Amino acid sequence: MNIPERILMGPGPSTVSARVLRALGSPTLGHLDPKYIELMDETCVRLRQVYQTTNALTFPVSATGMAGMECIITNLMEPGDEAIVCVNGVFGTRMVDVMERAGVTVHQVNVPWGEIFSDEAIAEAVQQHPKAKALGIVHAETSTGALQPIEAISKIVHDAGMLFLVDAVTSLSGHQLKVDEWKIDAIYSGTQKCLSCPPGLSPVSFSPAALEAMDKRKTKVQSWYFDVSMLKAYYSGSGKRAYHHTAPVNMIYALNEALAIVLEEGLETRFERHKQMHLRLRAGVAAMGISYVPKHSLHTLNCIHIPEGVDDAAVRTKLLEDYNLEIGAGLGPFAGKAWRIGLMGHTATKMNVDLVLAALKDAIG
Amino acid sequence: MNIPERILMGPGPSTVSARVLRALGSPTLGHLDPKYIELMDETCVRLRQVYQTTNALTFPVSATGMAGMECIITNLMEPGDEAIVCVNGVFGTRMVDVMERAGVTVHQVNVPWGEIFSDEAIAEAVQQHPKAKALGIVHAETSTGALQPIEAISKIVHDAGMLFLVDAVTSLSGHQLKVDEWKIDAIYSGTQKCLSCPPGLSPVSFSPAALEAMDKRKTKVQSWYFDVSMLKAYYSGSGKRAYHHTAPVNMIYALNEALAIVLEEGLETRFERHKQMHLRLRAGVAAMGISYVPKHSLHTLNCIHIPEGVDDAAVRTKLLEDYNLEIGAGLGPFAGKAWRIGLMGHTATKMNVDLVLAALKDAIG
Repeated sequence: MNIPERILMGPGPSTVSARVLRALGSPTLGHLDPKYIELMDETCVRLRQVYQTTNALTFPVSATGMAGMECIITNLMEPGDEAIVCVNGVFGTRMVDVMERAGVTVHQVNVPWGEIFSDEAIAEAVQQHPKAKALGIVHAETSTGALQPIEAISKIVHDAGMLFLVDAVTSLSGHQLKVDEWKIDAIYSGTQKCLSCPPGLSPVSFSPAALEAMDKRKTKVQSWYFDVSMLKAYYSGSGKRAYHHTAPVNMIYALNEALAIVLEEGLETRFERHKQMHLRLRAGVAAMGISYVPKHSLHTLNCIHIPEGVDDAAVRTKLLEDYNLEIGAGLGPFAGKAWRIGLMGHTATKMNVDLVLAALKDAIG
Repeated sequence: MNIPERILMGPGPSTVSARVLRALGSPTLGHLDPKYIELMDETCVRLRQVYQTTNALTFPVSATGMAGMECIITNLMEPGDEAIVCVNGVFGTRMVDVMERAGVTVHQVNVPWGEIFSDEAIAEAVQQHPKAKALGIVHAETSTGALQPIEAISKIVHDAGMLFLVDAVTSLSGHQLKVDEWKIDAIYSGTQKCLSCPPGLSPVSFSPAALEAMDKRKTKVQSWYFDVSMLKAYYSGSGKRAYHHTAPVNMIYALNEALAIVLEEGLETRFERHKQMHLRLRAGVAAMGISYVPKHSLHTLNCIHIPEGVDDAAVRTKLLEDYNLEIGAGLGPFAGKAWRIGLMGHTATKMNVDLVLAALKDAIG
């Protein structure tokens, strides 16, 4: 096996540090081994710290980021329920799809891709659809690079008596995100973004109100694999560690180590680093005459216009072949029109920002 | 992180070789990187060889073994469909549950845990329920250690015009298993059993008849994450490699290497090794006056009666603490009454058989 060492500056995975790769390759333990349970408990403690929550039910779903979305939706929603979903990119669109597959009647709130939702638009939506059980929104839209402020929206949603569901795949540990203070009821993320752990797990967290909503279900969760009622005993540490499925043991080692690195750096320091690297990249691309797609840009994912007359694929191929450097293509309406440059976790360094700027200059010519 | 090096002789995970752990810890690539796509294609080629199939749609589901069960059921079955499920242990029971969550009317065929199904029982069931779309059965029941012959059953099922669904979690690469010759329509397994790869992936394979059944669906697959219609383009190598979810890149490295090891040994040699190690263990426990639970025992998982008056948990703890050796507890009616000793893949060696016998003698006293 001959794997090149790439610098991963696309929409994820981000570059994984040698320290996390070493943890990943540690000897496999049984999933009911006391030493493994100890490490898994520690991982959940660390996850709570990074999510800034005391939610007991905070754990990594044993599958990639999209599984986190499916997990929170299938556990909280039942056939016949109504929900409001905010759509301004790929992941809002997918949330609608996952909701509908769960038998939910979805009311969409739409703004063009790359834009964000105003508090007023949300207030209007909850007023129009008072029977909705939940409102779902994407904090960090990976497909457009837009950062959605959510604190004020949370209040509007709760004042209307709804649950507040958040996609934080590309923001967790890269942008400020306070699950308890912002009263988020259910949230999911991925390990391969700002945590700089390989892809394969989806950290989720459920508030006490979400647990209550699950207790009131009239039907079984349609997914066995994602049914949280059966996972609670395994992850919450209360009672017997019953066998549900064989946990992805080595991936948990990697996540444990990745979270340790986040906490050693400190959340505030880490957010500030992501901001500074974003500003450095922003200044660099501005100097090249390149502008950003979204007005409200993420620090962690930088979606920039491809200059007129430049061959999208040729540039990305040159970066990969000459520099071992990956950046992301555009999605949906931005396919062929934008690049997505990730500055997430281990990747968000001065060295990488300066490198990608130099490489882009070389490739664009 | 301080992970002990255990010898894993429980129901899985089995011990992972240093070679597979090194592959696992290789640098993470992007999931659309040409080098990664090449490696993933190679992994699917190897999977087909190990499954003894030419099925185009043969790939690892990005989640653990139970996800494979949910994947094949949710893709092949629709609300209102009928199915026959054979139940003689935990995994048959779960197949019923997953089917019912998918809106399927299930007709159970039951024999006591530890026993297997006769061809006559299956013939009677398909005659009684002619409208069933599929029959599901467990080839290797991990909870009881029973090996179910399935070749003749496949003919009965197909003669009745039904699809034949098989759980091969604990048999793949440990017992003879010919997907094409035995005309299996959909099958799933786990990486952490006889493949001796860490847990986290579920290799599945679908026959052309299964693909046809999926094409005829009237409803969307209820799970977005497991919807094969969206995964086909990514894994089949035909057309564009569209983004569906971020593949668990490092786990694929490990599976690729684990499959290489299987193919280097050769399937027939590997099956024979599992048989010989089973016979060696069997002779050893017989000499201790201990008998097997199932009459038709798997080679890969040995479910044996705990001798009268012996403290189940105390013995397992002593094995773990004094020998770094894990064996499995009994499940369901066999909890506290049986042990499950895995001889799977990298674990199935003379050294380990002799060690577990010596350790059991020491612990039982």
